[in-house]
Amino acid sequence: MEYPKTFEELMECFKMLPGIGAKGAERMAYHVLSMNDDQVNRFSHALTDFKKKIHYCKVCGHICEDEVCEICKDEERDHHTICIVESPKDVFAMEKLKEFHGVYHVLGGTISIMDGKTMDDLNIQSLLDRLDENTKEVIIATNPTREGETTALFLAKLLNKKNITISRIANGLPIGSSLDYADELTLLRSLEDRKKI
Amino acid sequence: MEYPKTFEELMECFKMLPGIGAKGAERMAYHVLSMNDDQVNRFSHALTDFKKKIHYCKVCGHICEDEVCEICKDEERDHHTICIVESPKDVFAMEKLKEFHGVYHVLGGTISIMDGKTMDDLNIQSLLDRLDENTKEVIIATNPTREGETTALFLAKLLNKKNITISRIANGLPIGSSLDYADELTLLRSLEDRKKI
Repeated sequence: MEYPKTFEELMECFKMLPGIGAKGAERMAYHVLSMNDDQVNRFSHALTDFKKKIHYCKVCGHICEDEVCEICKDEERDHHTICIVESPKDVFAMEKLKEFHGVYHVLGGTISIMDGKTMDDLNIQSLLDRLDENTKEVIIATNPTREGETTALFLAKLLNKKNITISRIANGLPIGSSLDYADELTLLRSLEDRKKI
Repeated sequence: MEYPKTFEELMECFKMLPGIGAKGAERMAYHVLSMNDDQVNRFSHALTDFKKKIHYCKVCGHICEDEVCEICKDEERDHHTICIVESPKDVFAMEKLKEFHGVYHVLGGTISIMDGKTMDDLNIQSLLDRLDENTKEVIIATNPTREGETTALFLAKLLNKKNITISRIANGLPIGSSLDYADELTLLRSLEDRKKI
């Protein structure tokens, strides 16, 4: 016996979501069954509305509802210090700090040999267009993963020609961690980048 | 910094789903961002279509797209043997066996003191309406959990007055399991319900 077609179709849709398999999708479909009409309509509308309204900022590549994001529009921020991150998530993480007053540039991923992603697939041309003689510093804040490091190296090489200060966020032991639980690479970096106190 | 409103709204919707917290909802919303228009519209449509078309069978309470489900409509099945289950999921599990040729009755839950659910919240009146002098057997196949057992006892008591054969699915060690891993209650049941060979 098979599920009714509309049931099957909704399960297929849930399966498109990350981390959702057959059992999870089934559970979600049953849950939708228990939701009232208003809730389901709200959900359905949220999906189409989201797709219609959420864009990438044409300056920095961050997500926003307008053409240009709030950060790029904000004239009180330092537009000559640009922090390069992989994804919009990273912008939100940085903004939580309330310590960085520059602007961002979102790459929309990393170079990845496994996924066949090269520099051309990233939001880099618009970065080059933004840089001028007024640019003070470019902070490369891609993740400290293999892909993130590769991308950082590549960017550093590319931007070095431009005579701009380029920096990379620091690696080391996270606050509150302990030496004997740290992986070797982190510990090595932590030792190499030691600071005089 | 906050997410754009439509982003926030979609995350709220994902959070309505079972097992999805703030981080999961965020991840899903980002995934929707990477989906194309057709996929998002398909998803949105699947939700409303599902809510519009999926009903509970008015005879047995199983899910279906028509007024009466395929099993209840099937004249080749034995309509005098009724298997009582908790949810539509259980019907699909039973149907996979291809061994049971009777019909079902879906309770839509169990009696649960914790959740304040009584017999009145279950699909029982329609069960009583279905039973007549032709009914051969009622198989109570609620889950062997505390709530399922309580419901089974309650049903047995209710149906006993009706002079119908009532049975309960067997408990015991699952095939392929081992005695030393079985919980005590299962092992006890397995011993008590031993069969002559």
